[in-house]
Amino acid sequence: MTWEILNVIGTMAFGISGAIVALDEKYDLFGVYLLGFTTAFGGGLVRHVVLGLPVSEVWEQSMLFLIAFITLTLLFFIPFHWFFKEWEKWGVFFDAIGLSAFAIQGALFAVAAGYPLPAVIVGSVLTGTGGGMIRDILAGRKPLVLHKEIYAMWAVLGALVIGLGIATEMWELMVLLVLIITLRMLSVIYDWRLPSRSDWLRFVSSFRK
Amino acid sequence: MTWEILNVIGTMAFGISGAIVALDEKYDLFGVYLLGFTTAFGGGLVRHVVLGLPVSEVWEQSMLFLIAFITLTLLFFIPFHWFFKEWEKWGVFFDAIGLSAFAIQGALFAVAAGYPLPAVIVGSVLTGTGGGMIRDILAGRKPLVLHKEIYAMWAVLGALVIGLGIATEMWELMVLLVLIITLRMLSVIYDWRLPSRSDWLRFVSSFRK
Amino acid sequence: MTWEILNVIGTMAFGISGAIVALDEKYDLFGVYLLGFTTAFGGGLVRHVVLGLPVSEVWEQSMLFLIAFITLTLLFFIPFHWFFKEWEKWGVFFDAIGLSAFAIQGALFAVAAGYPLPAVIVGSVLTGTGGGMIRDILAGRKPLVLHKEIYAMWAVLGALVIGLGIATEMWELMVLLVLIITLRMLSVIYDWRLPSRSDWLRFVSSFRK
Repeated sequence: MTWEILNVIGTMAFGISGAIVALDEKYDLFGVYLLGFTTAFGGGLVRHVVLGLPVSEVWEQSMLFLIAFITLTLLFFIPFHWFFKEWEKWGVFFDAIGLSAFAIQGALFAVAAGYPLPAVIVGSVLTGTGGGMIRDILAGRKPLVLHKEIYAMWAVLGALVIGLGIATEMWELMVLLVLIITLRMLSVIYDWRLPSRSDWLRFVSSFRK
Repeated sequence: MTWEILNVIGTMAFGISGAIVALDEKYDLFGVYLLGFTTAFGGGLVRHVVLGLPVSEVWEQSMLFLIAFITLTLLFFIPFHWFFKEWEKWGVFFDAIGLSAFAIQGALFAVAAGYPLPAVIVGSVLTGTGGGMIRDILAGRKPLVLHKEIYAMWAVLGALVIGLGIATEMWELMVLLVLIITLRMLSVIYDWRLPSRSDWLRFVSSFRK
Repeated sequence: MTWEILNVIGTMAFGISGAIVALDEKYDLFGVYLLGFTTAFGGGLVRHVVLGLPVSEVWEQSMLFLIAFITLTLLFFIPFHWFFKEWEKWGVFFDAIGLSAFAIQGALFAVAAGYPLPAVIVGSVLTGTGGGMIRDILAGRKPLVLHKEIYAMWAVLGALVIGLGIATEMWELMVLLVLIITLRMLSVIYDWRLPSRSDWLRFVSSFRK
């Protein structure tokens, strides 16, 4: 049940983020479907392949394909930019929802499959960032995951919280979902960054003098 | 039997298209084999992984590897451009053959595995365009699938015809094969395009005034 | 036992080469882990997926993840460039070690799975070059495998030596390991290249006059 809700949320959010990038790049109708579907289902597919789970499960979600199809079709045909200004920026927000939902779902899958913590982290990061990376590579953009503001680290956080058994209940996972979205958006807004090596070496050098 | 014929046609066509790109980019002998083999077998491999079919099947086609090896070796050593002018353009034609053969084959695999229509479409598109996309990404070119003229949509057409049970007989599939090749080449020659969103919005706006 | 030693050597070497590229590109701490881990484990993962081996094996190597984690952490925090000059160039050397170790390991896996020679070659090349290709694509660099100096051909050599049963003993494999590293480094230092088609055509043309 939890997995299904996370799946619907993540799929719709990543589908929308893919469609927004496609519209932004002025792709045609097929391009919107291509980028929408690969972003929405790429993460789950990569997770299943990388964790060795039965890929056929991915194809048995006909309801989810239908939801994504309707969402993408509406996005293409409704002139929503007459009402929303700067709708391209919403792409970052929907990507954050997808990142959070899929990171949590990926971690839950890895835990359910009985994998140790490293696999939970990799599963969470790959699931959460996989769809978006395929989207960005197909659109010829620099992957969000390599941007300066903290991104995949929040998937690692989710993996640790789940892998160490801190959050297991439905409501705890929902809190975690909102938390990761919030942290990601704060990272973008306030340009939060991890230390780079030159930051570290400057810090070390200050002891040298 | 049908699958094997489609497999030989698709493998040779994509192998040649890969080799032509490699020669065009002035890669060495290994580059010709690398691009030829990845284009020829990448589509089938991606299909098997994505549809959850046993990958070992891909490796049991020794005859096919031999055919591809001989084709690529001949292409490298025979100075065919003394006889053909503008041979680079043939790459688009061989790619169209590969697209058509592999799209049909991918759809047949998905149907045989008992998957629903969305999986048949995805299987067809990924199989038909997978090898070519790997080729273009490796060669640092913009993937054909993202060009303006209609490309992957013809794989979707093939998937619908097969997934809805319209074509099942061998001769029907061969007609479909030729049809998709023809439609793809017409798309290139006459620059057929799908509507973009700005086309659509212009159309909608005309009602607004 | 042999596999495990090759696995540790390849993982550490590719991990270091990934970290060096990340530091070179001025990525942050997460970028160093991302590039280090994907380079170190990407090859093995691609091998398992492509050869149809159980992916879960990859995730049961907790010791290896720990080794990689410690290696990458040390690389980030220790200011080793105060002692080494031109440390970026070491990246090519560590990549050569990873190429050799993983090419041999990939060939051994394919042979153990009972695959024929073409699969042994593909397994060796993909395992040996897969991690490095992911590293270079993620970092937006031209993949080493497409550089002019001979690279993947040495993985093919290893595959032939193993696939044809020439080397089977532990010490023979270790000789092969050192041989491939040496040949790769000589290729870089002396700029060894395979013939391109224009070399060949010039050779053929000399008979024409």
